[in-house]
This record gives sequence, structure tokens and C-alpha cells, in this order.
Amino acid sequence: MEEITVFGAGSWGTALANLLGELGHRVVLWCRRSDQARAINLLGENPNYLRGYRISSNVTATSKIDEAVESPKWVLALPTQAVRGFLTELSGNMAPQRPEICNVAKGIEIDSAFTVSEIVKNVLGDVSYSVLSGPSHAEEVIRGFPTAVVVASLRVEAAEMWQNVFSRPTFRVYTSNDVVGVEIGGAVKNVIAIAAGIAKAMELGDNALAALVSRGLAEIMRLGAKMRANPLTLSGLAGVGDLIVTCFSGHSRNMRLGFSIGMGKSMKEASDELGQVAEGIYTVKALKKMAQQVGVELPIVEEVYAILYEGLSPNEALSNLLLRDPKPELPPAMQWM
Amino acid sequence: MEEITVFGAGSWGTALANLLGELGHRVVLWCRRSDQARAINLLGENPNYLRGYRISSNVTATSKIDEAVESPKWVLALPTQAVRGFLTELSGNMAPQRPEICNVAKGIEIDSAFTVSEIVKNVLGDVSYSVLSGPSHAEEVIRGFPTAVVVASLRVEAAEMWQNVFSRPTFRVYTSNDVVGVEIGGAVKNVIAIAAGIAKAMELGDNALAALVSRGLAEIMRLGAKMRANPLTLSGLAGVGDLIVTCFSGHSRNMRLGFSIGMGKSMKEASDELGQVAEGIYTVKALKKMAQQVGVELPIVEEVYAILYEGLSPNEALSNLLLRDPKPELPPAMQWM
Repeated sequence: MEEITVFGAGSWGTALANLLGELGHRVVLWCRRSDQARAINLLGENPNYLRGYRISSNVTATSKIDEAVESPKWVLALPTQAVRGFLTELSGNMAPQRPEICNVAKGIEIDSAFTVSEIVKNVLGDVSYSVLSGPSHAEEVIRGFPTAVVVASLRVEAAEMWQNVFSRPTFRVYTSNDVVGVEIGGAVKNVIAIAAGIAKAMELGDNALAALVSRGLAEIMRLGAKMRANPLTLSGLAGVGDLIVTCFSGHSRNMRLGFSIGMGKSMKEASDELGQVAEGIYTVKALKKMAQQVGVELPIVEEVYAILYEGLSPNEALSNLLLRDPKPELPPAMQWM
Repeated sequence: MEEITVFGAGSWGTALANLLGELGHRVVLWCRRSDQARAINLLGENPNYLRGYRISSNVTATSKIDEAVESPKWVLALPTQAVRGFLTELSGNMAPQRPEICNVAKGIEIDSAFTVSEIVKNVLGDVSYSVLSGPSHAEEVIRGFPTAVVVASLRVEAAEMWQNVFSRPTFRVYTSNDVVGVEIGGAVKNVIAIAAGIAKAMELGDNALAALVSRGLAEIMRLGAKMRANPLTLSGLAGVGDLIVTCFSGHSRNMRLGFSIGMGKSMKEASDELGQVAEGIYTVKALKKMAQQVGVELPIVEEVYAILYEGLSPNEALSNLLLRDPKPELPPAMQWM
């Protein structure tokens, strides 16, 4: 049994803390707000997220950072855009013995176009970093529905350690050494989901939607390959798997945002209507930047960007895509053997 | 403009013949039955498939094989299980100048576990063979909805020739040199669709469905890699793209069959209820055979086979899958660079 701190008591942090508690680990769930921590300890459930689900009694909530940092294993369940600030704040409190870190947030930092592994390295230097991702609605995980995820680390022992820590039959943890691939997959699916929402609103049909997802994936693989990711990681749980959940479950914020935009709303109107942040509107900016840096064409990403930020109409974007010459499906860099 | 014969006047053959006609080619549409050919020429639509859609006047239907074989370009739009018999019958009639062949059927021959390219080679010897596949409901293609497909040939010039023949803005044709990969993708999606239908009936949730599709795809990539396919082809239009249409459009026969079986029906009952053939019930047999021949583990395929042919209950199959140890997501053979 391990001592583990989960930083962040949103729905995903809560579901994972509960999972770890049910597996018998001693879990500290760090909440930013002390009233939330008190409520969790008092009620045995999170008053803000996943209400109505009892949290394992092995989980203790706290808002005290000095208590939270003592565990030798950290799960980071914070919003991507908050990771840098949080770690900077924390770095003064860290014991000389560095923790094992497993990040479960998905996304890319807007200003830097950094993935979370790059932010962590930037702030904390060399630490043992892993990332857990895949198709995993928190609402289903807390109910014990079968779920499969992938945990990636450059060090195979770290990935296997987290695999042991998290695994049970209904929570299957595959390992990978492709940190960049897993991080790109988790970020990029939101942009493709926006495109899918637009296509649905335009009633382009099932063929077009499937083509969009496939060709969107092809773009991301090209980008991934340039960044030394294994393109096959993008065909896995953190890529195609998460993409399917995001594009087809109907609950995706990014897809709903795209749908509103496809119905003729502006990005402002669509975002207001949603009342929440759709991560993809930031990721598309970061992707555009990354694509220029590494020199890869991303036609679908470009058109989504132009629709969101340059007032291009979805119909014009569609014409632009349809009038391009189709290249070989797999570019030379992706020929195999 | 080209002279092209489309063999087979099912919905896909009809939609493609019409597309080619609209593009200005002179098209012969070969029908097995003379009354069907007469009706198409008389009515300008196919009385059996895609009723209500006018077929381009550049298309002439015939049931006379000696007329049909004269075109230098052939599109094979026959059921996979009928290809061998048809070509054997035809081989006596073939001119010394061999046609360019483009197959558009998906599937694997049951007895031999051959893909269509292997059947063609087996019967006709070395001919210029291409295969066209991807997410392409005929109903949407005949209405001019945007569609993207891939055409693969070992000879790049053949793939590009067919790309030119078929392309228009709303019918985008990508090229590939990976014939085996495209053929496996088209066949295998039906088995995964059966598994997806079973999972839906069992109400396993969105996480589980996405995991099933991803891990199903991973199996097929492993099999594909052993057969010298490029695993990335399975992430493309003929793999993931077609899989998405099949698993999520709701019209898939294979998915509906799986759903009935997941609800406790026997394969016989489920097939009777469907009233049509679900190709995946044959493909799963062929895949099991192929997996043994090349030595690859296909756990999901194995469980689908056991449910269909050995009376295993879906719940037992699920336990079997959940109790396996998760391996690294990408086996060593799929490490990249």
C-alpha cells in the first residue's frame, strides 16, 4: 500500500482519489479551498463534483500544502493552465527526496505551447514524470464501469509502478514509453472534436464525419512524428480512444461548442452558451504555433483556427478542404518497414 | 474520359457507376440479371438499390459478360464470397490485353482466409490490382455528400490512375501502396463492430466502448504488422475511418447483430432477426485462422469467436478480458524510430 497525494479535487481528481482509496492506498486529496476539504471529510463526498458518490474512507482531504507534499507519490489533477503556477508555488516546499509524479491533466499551455511534461521539467527540473490518459469519464470510473487507460513514462519502471498502483480489473492500465505521444493525443482530440461538432451542425453526413476524424488524426500523427512521438500512440487509448469518447458521447464541451459554431454562432456566443471553457479553443492556437515551429501542414487545424479566430465561415472552410489535392494517405516519413 | 465497367449493381456498384458517369466517363454497369439491366436502362434508376436516385445517362447497364469485359478498366463491386466464382467464369473471356482492376468489396474469403487481392492473383495471375476502401455509405455518395476514400496498389501509377478516374471535390481519393493494410481494415472493422454492439447491449458505458474499439484496433494492427501491412494504414480511412462509421452510425448490420447477441439472443436468432448477412460472423473465423497462422494474440477476436460459436456468455467473455494482464500498449515490434 502506498501513500499518495492527489492534487486537485475536480471530478477527475476525486474519482482517482476514490479509486486509489478503494484499492487500499492511503490517499491525501488536496483541495485549493479549505471549506471543500472540510466538507469532503465531513460528508464523505465531494460537494462540488460527482455529488452523491461516497468517497472511500481511505481518502483524507486537506487544503494544507505542507501536509500534502509529504507523500512520496503525487498525482497532478489540476487544470493544465494552472500547473505552472501551482508547481512554482510548491517548489519551495518540496522535500529533498523528490516525489514520483503522475499527471492526469490533458492540454497544452497556451503561451508556451508546452505539454505538461515540459512545464514540469521547466519548473522542477528532472523529476520522475509519468502521464495517465485515455477515454475515462470520471462519472463512469467512480461507478466502477470498465475503463482502460495508458500511463507513459520515459522510465519503464515508473510506468509499471503507476500501473501497479492504479490497476484493478475494471481499471486497466496499459504502459507506454511515449510521453509526448500520450500528451499530444490528450490535447489534440479537443480540436478535432470542435471540427466534428461543426460538421455535425452542417449535416455533412456520416462519411464526412468519419473522414474528418481520420484525416484529423493523420494530421496529428504527422505533427507527433516530427516531435518524436510514436504515431501509433495516437491510434491508441490516448488518441483514437479518447477521440471517440469526445466526438461521439455527446457530452463533450468541445463538440458542443463546434456544433453551435456550425449553426452560425460566433465563438463568443457559443462559449457564453456553453458556460464553460472548451479547452480546444486554446489548443488550436498552440497547435498552429507548434506546426509552424516544426514545419508540418495541418489543414483541418488551420481551418478550425480560421473559423474560430478569423471569421471564416464553415462553408468556406469546407470548400478550402475539399479543393485541396489529396496527397498519399501516409507521407514518406510514415512508411513502415 | 475512360471506358470503365463496374461489375455488380448492388448499392455500392450503382453509386460508383453513377459517380463515374457524372464525371464524364463511359460506364458499363454489369448486372447479373438481365431484367435488372433492362430496368436500369429504361427507368434511369436501379429498381433494387438506391431507388429514387437518377443514374447518370453515361451509364449503360448490361447483363452480357462479353460486352462487359471489353472495357480496359474494371471496377469489381461484387460480394467478396462471389469474387472467386465470378472471376473463374470470366477468365475464359478475357482479352489478351489485361484490364486494370479496382476492387471495392470488403471482406475475407471464408474457406481460404484470402483477401480479395489474393483471390484475384490466385485466379487471374499477375494483373494490375487496386483496392478502394474507406467510410463510404453508398446512400451518401449518390447524394453527393463529401466522402474521402483511399485507393491502394502496389504500383503507385495504378493508384494514381484510379485517383484521377474517381476524384471530384466531394469524393476525395487518397493513395496508398499498402494493399494488405487497406484490405485488412475493411474486413476487420465488422468484427470490432460486433464486439461494440455486444458492449452497448451490456451497457458497459462510453469508456468501455472506446477502450474496446482502441484495443480492437491494436489487435488488428499487430496482425497487420505480421502480414507486412503498415499498421498506420489501420489508423487511416480504411481502418479507423470505416470503423467509426460502422460502430457509431447505427445502421451497421454487424453492430446490430452484436447488440442482439449482447441482449442474450443466440447467433441464429440474431441473424434471423437481422434478415441479412453480417459479414463479421465469417470474418471472425478467418481472423482466428490467420492469427494462428502468423502467431499473434487477438484477445477480443477470440472472445467474439467464443461468444458466436462456442456459446460463451458475454459476461464471461468480459471477465476473461478484464482479468488479463495489460501489456505495454505498443509491443516491441511497433516501437517507432
